[in-house]
Amino acid sequence: MSIISGFSKLDKTGKINWISDTFFGSKPEVVKTLKQYWNEDLALQNLHDDFIENAISNYYLPLGVAPNFKINNKVYAVPMVTEESSVVAAASLVAKLWQDLGGFKTEVIGTEKIGQIHLNYKGKFEDLKQHFDGVYDQFFEATESLTQNMRKRGGGIDTISLVDKTADLEDYYQIHVTFDTKDSMGANFINSCLEAMAKVIETDEVEVIMSILSNYLPNCTVKAELSCQIKDLPVDNPELFARKFHEAVRIAEIEPFRAVTHNKGIMNGVDSVVVATGNDFRAIEAGAHAYAARNGKYSSLSTCSLENGYFTFSLTLPLALGTVGGLTALHPMAQFSMDLLGRPNAEELMQIVAAVGLAQNFAALRALVTSGIQKGHMKMHLSNILNQEGIVGEKRKEVEAYFQNRTISHKAVLSYLKMDI
Amino acid sequence: MSIISGFSKLDKTGKINWISDTFFGSKPEVVKTLKQYWNEDLALQNLHDDFIENAISNYYLPLGVAPNFKINNKVYAVPMVTEESSVVAAASLVAKLWQDLGGFKTEVIGTEKIGQIHLNYKGKFEDLKQHFDGVYDQFFEATESLTQNMRKRGGGIDTISLVDKTADLEDYYQIHVTFDTKDSMGANFINSCLEAMAKVIETDEVEVIMSILSNYLPNCTVKAELSCQIKDLPVDNPELFARKFHEAVRIAEIEPFRAVTHNKGIMNGVDSVVVATGNDFRAIEAGAHAYAARNGKYSSLSTCSLENGYFTFSLTLPLALGTVGGLTALHPMAQFSMDLLGRPNAEELMQIVAAVGLAQNFAALRALVTSGIQKGHMKMHLSNILNQEGIVGEKRKEVEAYFQNRTISHKAVLSYLKMDI
Repeated sequence: MSIISGFSKLDKTGKINWISDTFFGSKPEVVKTLKQYWNEDLALQNLHDDFIENAISNYYLPLGVAPNFKINNKVYAVPMVTEESSVVAAASLVAKLWQDLGGFKTEVIGTEKIGQIHLNYKGKFEDLKQHFDGVYDQFFEATESLTQNMRKRGGGIDTISLVDKTADLEDYYQIHVTFDTKDSMGANFINSCLEAMAKVIETDEVEVIMSILSNYLPNCTVKAELSCQIKDLPVDNPELFARKFHEAVRIAEIEPFRAVTHNKGIMNGVDSVVVATGNDFRAIEAGAHAYAARNGKYSSLSTCSLENGYFTFSLTLPLALGTVGGLTALHPMAQFSMDLLGRPNAEELMQIVAAVGLAQNFAALRALVTSGIQKGHMKMHLSNILNQEGIVGEKRKEVEAYFQNRTISHKAVLSYLKMDI
Repeated sequence: MSIISGFSKLDKTGKINWISDTFFGSKPEVVKTLKQYWNEDLALQNLHDDFIENAISNYYLPLGVAPNFKINNKVYAVPMVTEESSVVAAASLVAKLWQDLGGFKTEVIGTEKIGQIHLNYKGKFEDLKQHFDGVYDQFFEATESLTQNMRKRGGGIDTISLVDKTADLEDYYQIHVTFDTKDSMGANFINSCLEAMAKVIETDEVEVIMSILSNYLPNCTVKAELSCQIKDLPVDNPELFARKFHEAVRIAEIEPFRAVTHNKGIMNGVDSVVVATGNDFRAIEAGAHAYAARNGKYSSLSTCSLENGYFTFSLTLPLALGTVGGLTALHPMAQFSMDLLGRPNAEELMQIVAAVGLAQNFAALRALVTSGIQKGHMKMHLSNILNQEGIVGEKRKEVEAYFQNRTISHKAVLSYLKMDI
């Protein structure tokens, strides 16, 4: 019977036993697979088990390091967590290529966080406005204890405004609130403030539908840039490269089918650092892609210009990151990542992440407009197949040599191996 | 000196030593932190180290299980990998709530994959069309060996068309190719085919800028639905709940600031299964959010209707997933996830993932329109703080009781602890 009551109340072993009995015919291999990923340090494992509910094991994602990232003249070795091969290699390569050309220039454009209280009100806007103005001071009083610490750090609630949205939806109004959450991502802070403020505005006539932060933060953005003289571009045939690279970015600006994949490549870099530092990649992804669509047509997050002999490649995207609190404070590997980066504050981390995103985009476009994307991928693909088949040593070198200029597929590799083992 | 040459050529210990010497003043704790996450099974650790470049340790994400997911009358226990607390609890709760109401109904709407060859051509469209028609058969000949296996499984190249994009960008044309990649996500397959086809079309006049799959797949979609009579909704006061829930979804349809967060909640569920099964979450994220913006304004991926006494809540989103090849085949925990789900094919996995996304959305909206989102979050927040402070046993119960109806913050909890320890 695959329906269960009280699963969450079972201890970890009880959960695993039920899973094994119900879905695996009690085969001992299942329990072995799950347990081989447990940490032998029980206290450490307990810490990880408590992060979420019904945890039964750890899912490993590799943490790699891309050294030589020169950002505003400071050099970082960047921790990257990703399952996708060639992402770390690509970032490392680009960091190295640009290191002698001044590296990455980055700047934070804004840090505004947003939350909204969504209201249903059947009366006139003027009456609601009068009520809003009447209780305005109470919004601050009701959140006094919540914002106390944040205010000490220079943050808190910035603006509170009433918005008439009835043109879009009948009886729908918002209280739109902007925040400065300093080095915290701020989700809990913002939601707690909003829920307290909602109690202030609510009456028998003013119905609160919901109170919640927004992950769309067009004024919490950061810009990263690479630029040099076209002739100094660290590639063969800089003029041709620059022209094709520029056209590839222009295509991503006007063609959504390309833009989505173009930005996906940026996010390969962005997310790897977001995950490594214990931040929430779904929030970052949602905000970035919505920003890419802000002008009504989904478009590239990066731009390229070729002017007066100069190549300039830049990326602007929203990044709401935290460097204190949350998983960042709790996960020992997130702490390692923060230490490796020299314990950046939120603004510095935004800049590092944007630089890695731009590096990833440069690497992908560089491959696409020259040798194609498959050359590097296929090398990794072959490596994975050989790992899977347990091919090592001289034999491995022989297979790699054979497939140097041949099409790599699982089938082709197996055929070759069968042919002469 | 924080610049290094040949980092990738160092072995793992050499990499860690360089990091420790360069960024941590050679403190032994760093090496200890990294090594405590290594698996003691050397072969298993080597497997994980080979997934990406410059890997130095494993980043644990917890794998939890949400049981009782009834999808098209089959019951699944769903593996979910996420760092965000309350995501697995929310999915489990919703699965349970709907189990007696028929569970989730899901269907695959399409499975079309897309790739494009981006061309620069300064001549007339008619001339390019003539060239395209002339080499058309060669596209298939050039990809014969690449598509052989896929064709055996019923997939392959579906359509190849030349598109005039010069209205958007001077001299820009595309070869737009559609594929059926069956149970593989198909990235390597598509890119290899496109690069082979690019060689066919290229001449001195027809310049290939790049050849690459698209992660925007509006015809590779799946739909999941929950429905029941309003009076049977598993909540207190079903009529009020249904009205507020419906309005909350309407708000997400018309207000991008809300839509982004609404969809982010859906992706909390979606990505957890995507990661657990070894799929690429950046590809899924990019495709889903671009789809949410397809009509020119970023909007909700889910819809709700209240008609004739019926509550219907559904989600449609693009999901290009693989169940064979890639990391799915290589990562032992991804294999566990696939086994736990009964080894679904790609279409079945699309349906499971969509159901979990819809469940997550239902859970978030349910909390938002009733007690607010913070109640559940704060319970987890308190739990995390208590873990961090090492508070267990009776003391923990006492603190939990004290904060039952009080505002939880790190500071408040520490104050309380200091007060009487």
